[in-house]
Amino acid sequence: MTSAARPFDDIRALLAKMPKADEAAIAAAREREGQLTKPAGSLGRLEEISAFMAGWQGSARPHVDRPLVAVFAGNHGVVAQGVSPFPQSVTKAMVANFTAGGAAINQICKTFDISLKVYELALEKPTGDITEGPAMDERTCAGTIAYGMEALATEPDLLVLGEMGIGNTTAAAAIFHALYGGEAEHWVGRGTGVDDAGLKRKAEAVRAAIARHKPHLTDPLEVLARLGGREIAAMAGAILAARLRRTPVVLDGFVVSSAAAVLHALDASALDHCLAGHVSAERAHGEALKRLGKAPLLDLGMRLGEGSGAALAVAIVKAAVACHNGMATFAEAGVAGKEG
Amino acid sequence: MTSAARPFDDIRALLAKMPKADEAAIAAAREREGQLTKPAGSLGRLEEISAFMAGWQGSARPHVDRPLVAVFAGNHGVVAQGVSPFPQSVTKAMVANFTAGGAAINQICKTFDISLKVYELALEKPTGDITEGPAMDERTCAGTIAYGMEALATEPDLLVLGEMGIGNTTAAAAIFHALYGGEAEHWVGRGTGVDDAGLKRKAEAVRAAIARHKPHLTDPLEVLARLGGREIAAMAGAILAARLRRTPVVLDGFVVSSAAAVLHALDASALDHCLAGHVSAERAHGEALKRLGKAPLLDLGMRLGEGSGAALAVAIVKAAVACHNGMATFAEAGVAGKEG
Repeated sequence: MTSAARPFDDIRALLAKMPKADEAAIAAAREREGQLTKPAGSLGRLEEISAFMAGWQGSARPHVDRPLVAVFAGNHGVVAQGVSPFPQSVTKAMVANFTAGGAAINQICKTFDISLKVYELALEKPTGDITEGPAMDERTCAGTIAYGMEALATEPDLLVLGEMGIGNTTAAAAIFHALYGGEAEHWVGRGTGVDDAGLKRKAEAVRAAIARHKPHLTDPLEVLARLGGREIAAMAGAILAARLRRTPVVLDGFVVSSAAAVLHALDASALDHCLAGHVSAERAHGEALKRLGKAPLLDLGMRLGEGSGAALAVAIVKAAVACHNGMATFAEAGVAGKEG
Repeated sequence: MTSAARPFDDIRALLAKMPKADEAAIAAAREREGQLTKPAGSLGRLEEISAFMAGWQGSARPHVDRPLVAVFAGNHGVVAQGVSPFPQSVTKAMVANFTAGGAAINQICKTFDISLKVYELALEKPTGDITEGPAMDERTCAGTIAYGMEALATEPDLLVLGEMGIGNTTAAAAIFHALYGGEAEHWVGRGTGVDDAGLKRKAEAVRAAIARHKPHLTDPLEVLARLGGREIAAMAGAILAARLRRTPVVLDGFVVSSAAAVLHALDASALDHCLAGHVSAERAHGEALKRLGKAPLLDLGMRLGEGSGAALAVAIVKAAVACHNGMATFAEAGVAGKEG
């Protein structure tokens, strides 16, 4: 690295190398889809999902044999502003709960045979309070993005992102506000369940953070470093690493989407390998997904994080791929097609 | 049976005996839900599902250990009116495909470990053409309802209803039109994929059927007999039998909903034990579900029937129950609750 090199240069270099989907595999998958024993198009979004999976896995017969939920956990200095009803110690306690198998994500993973890995990101060192200074310096942020890329080391064939971090819906709201403008109130929501006064404090914290960092927010990676959090940076890294391996990704809720939004702001095609697993009950999530150009698979009023909504959506992806691969063709089954 | 007794009297007698949900089990499930390691309400509709399952299974710890998809297949005289692009022989061929494991429903059942039973209803004897006379006489209809009740014989702990029958979206549209009024055009849709001319023929067939049977359509059971089909009558029986055993049910698409609508018209509480698995792409299905007071779990643009959308929704029910039963409580995990 020359003395002029900056930590984010490596990230930008990777963004420039993102592969595209395999169009031949998509075409082959679509051709097979049209021969299966069902009226054309009658599996709706399941057919889209099969083609999507085929394109990224580079095979007309896509698979979900080694899905992985990667949950990243971080702590946030902004909790000093009273933005969460839960104490910061809950982040660490919930990581222990994940390890012990007692959280919602454990049950969902067990139900659908999904592996779960939890990445604890220096919980004893919360990021800086974004109302007073940057969450992270550039070196820490770039290092955390690189760390997140390690989630792909086990070579999952479908990656689901999840997070845990008391205070992180405030960081996510600040990122969206920085990237998309509008009013702070528009981007904050009740998170784990703040009351009206807490919601007001969240909006004030987001407004204060944007005001403080304003001159530096034109670069999405600066937005991530200054307003984000370790788990958000790590998830951005995991999404990017998945892309470089052409591994399809299922995004979870509001906080995961903020990590995705940073990449999307750097390159509008950066999320082409991602499905939106669900739209959460966090009020600005639907709008965030629209900005990302993603239609959620599920809308069940969930707002837990942990990757829970996205892991549930893996069931849909599994069913899509199972139908695509396992169904008989009209010829195989001796079923007549449309008349005339 | 006295000479005055009519076949439908037995059905009406069963409707008068429908049990209600176990409120104590619902309360116990809700109490447990509030102690689990997540912010209150953060699992959204999964929490409602757990309470629903608890109420019908009469246990604070509901289960999905023996789910069953029951697919009923019937043939329809109304196909003579050119209402489907597929020949009637496809009903039988698809039943063979179900048996051989080649259909979409087979793959979805395999993915989520759901049993599948297929009930073939006198496919060689299509019902009467509803534009010219009744689909069934009262005795046949009542007998078919009773036959459908047998689907509960294997004692599933969750029943999913599905159907197959070339022409049956026309029968379903006629039922909805008879029950809910409006214009025939409002209730017909593209089914397996009719073109504009076919859609027009469907509306004309529905309009003609309603005109022909008008004087007899004040009784929902008469609506079922005159306009429905064998698979629709059997599904009405299965839904009713499930209720009598307090077995929860997941409804599938447009045709299953027409069977449900007959019971709902007889007694507005008759579907309290039913979830709407999905809203299909058949254009009047969303409106039909509103009439039934049901919010669908999934909206994936599916329009295949076979129970496919509802079987996919079983994944959601499984996850809900797994979270409810498997999660640690705040006390067990040593996780702090909300402050203050």
